[in-house]
Amino acid sequence: MDKIGSYEFMAEPFHCDFSGRLFMGHMGNHMLNAADFHSSARGFGMKYLMTIKRSWVLSRLAIEMEEMPAQYTKFNVETWVESAMRFFTNRNFRVVGADENGNEKIYGYGRSVWAMIDTDTRQPTDIFSIDDGAIKNWIVDDKECPIEKGGRVKMSDTAEFVSAIETHYNDVDINGHINSVKYIEHVLDLWSIDWYKEHRLKRFEIAYVAEAHEGDKLSFYREQTGEGEYCVRIVRSDGTETCRSKLLFV
Amino acid sequence: MDKIGSYEFMAEPFHCDFSGRLFMGHMGNHMLNAADFHSSARGFGMKYLMTIKRSWVLSRLAIEMEEMPAQYTKFNVETWVESAMRFFTNRNFRVVGADENGNEKIYGYGRSVWAMIDTDTRQPTDIFSIDDGAIKNWIVDDKECPIEKGGRVKMSDTAEFVSAIETHYNDVDINGHINSVKYIEHVLDLWSIDWYKEHRLKRFEIAYVAEAHEGDKLSFYREQTGEGEYCVRIVRSDGTETCRSKLLFV
Repeated sequence: MDKIGSYEFMAEPFHCDFSGRLFMGHMGNHMLNAADFHSSARGFGMKYLMTIKRSWVLSRLAIEMEEMPAQYTKFNVETWVESAMRFFTNRNFRVVGADENGNEKIYGYGRSVWAMIDTDTRQPTDIFSIDDGAIKNWIVDDKECPIEKGGRVKMSDTAEFVSAIETHYNDVDINGHINSVKYIEHVLDLWSIDWYKEHRLKRFEIAYVAEAHEGDKLSFYREQTGEGEYCVRIVRSDGTETCRSKLLFV
Repeated sequence: MDKIGSYEFMAEPFHCDFSGRLFMGHMGNHMLNAADFHSSARGFGMKYLMTIKRSWVLSRLAIEMEEMPAQYTKFNVETWVESAMRFFTNRNFRVVGADENGNEKIYGYGRSVWAMIDTDTRQPTDIFSIDDGAIKNWIVDDKECPIEKGGRVKMSDTAEFVSAIETHYNDVDINGHINSVKYIEHVLDLWSIDWYKEHRLKRFEIAYVAEAHEGDKLSFYREQTGEGEYCVRIVRSDGTETCRSKLLFV
């Protein structure tokens, strides 16, 4: 089996924004699905891990797009494991389709960092303990992923409170946590459509710090950190930070 | 080509609720995609209609499920045109998969009503004017769809105000209108997870009355009309009713 997995998706009409381009949240969802398909087919997917009380936990996701696929466009999300350590693996993505002449067209890239936890204790566990470190057989260290790694999102204490939302039924996943993809949507909703008419979201980065649950009120604090660059801190009702996100608009 | 189209989908992890079952909003989305694939392959899809300044407009959607597909389950959405009149067509859906023995398993059904509009005038147009009434060649009037048609949702003036939401970037579709699928999510969010732990949503029905746009504040009014039966009216900022929905919990 190829070390790199490639999965076809389509920019479905109801997954596209006012401009007819795929929403960043749905692109994130496609990447997470690709990761799941890839790992499942290679013996270290969520479904198998559940049987041994382990689970992958997404720690960081960074997506950088030159262009978002337009409505009805088919594209492939390629994914591979760039490196694996005891407590973290780096998984990359490349989004690729075809231009009008049938030539390869690269839409963008993604990078993600995953930990593995024991689902009873919720503590990190040794990734290499799974099938005698079999994940090492799947490492691809020579495929290019020419976007920056998601670093620590630095924010000062002066970030401005922008809005707060209640979380509801549709925000919660099977673990009872706020759905990773929904966070992306909520962050993007901090900007108006008028803003999106003038700016393109080139890069989106999110670090998942602590879990939030249904009924948690999420408060969003925003700080401009450069030209078109913004950082967002999401804080739950009890004051704990749940996520930190960084966006670059061009 | 078969008059009935059948399209495979999977209950993706991030499309499943706390109980590990597909969200009703995503089921609605899959049905609308199936409708689009079916009509496009048969010469009367959205993409073709755009070229002649016509568009399908979803008027009503009713979904009734015996069971929602569980996380990672593959299922097919079948769709066919039950009848076509000058200004409306009825399109049905059947959601079908396999049980553990490989036998057919019916998850549920859907019914929808569509109008066709002139995209310049936004007025209804004659469906039979497309390709000399070609849609009539695709009618299937003998395939069973054993769920009630969506009727007029009757509500009194005493419906209680439940909540109001601002609409944002992720709510808006390519036409600048609030996304039909997002309305479903917003309605379902009126009930708490505790409610969903005790009740299963068996039937969901929505009638799209008038369009709402980004920035519109949507107010939700709810009325109990029977045992487990609720009607919801969605009203936009200027007081105009945009949708009416009916839900049956069991």
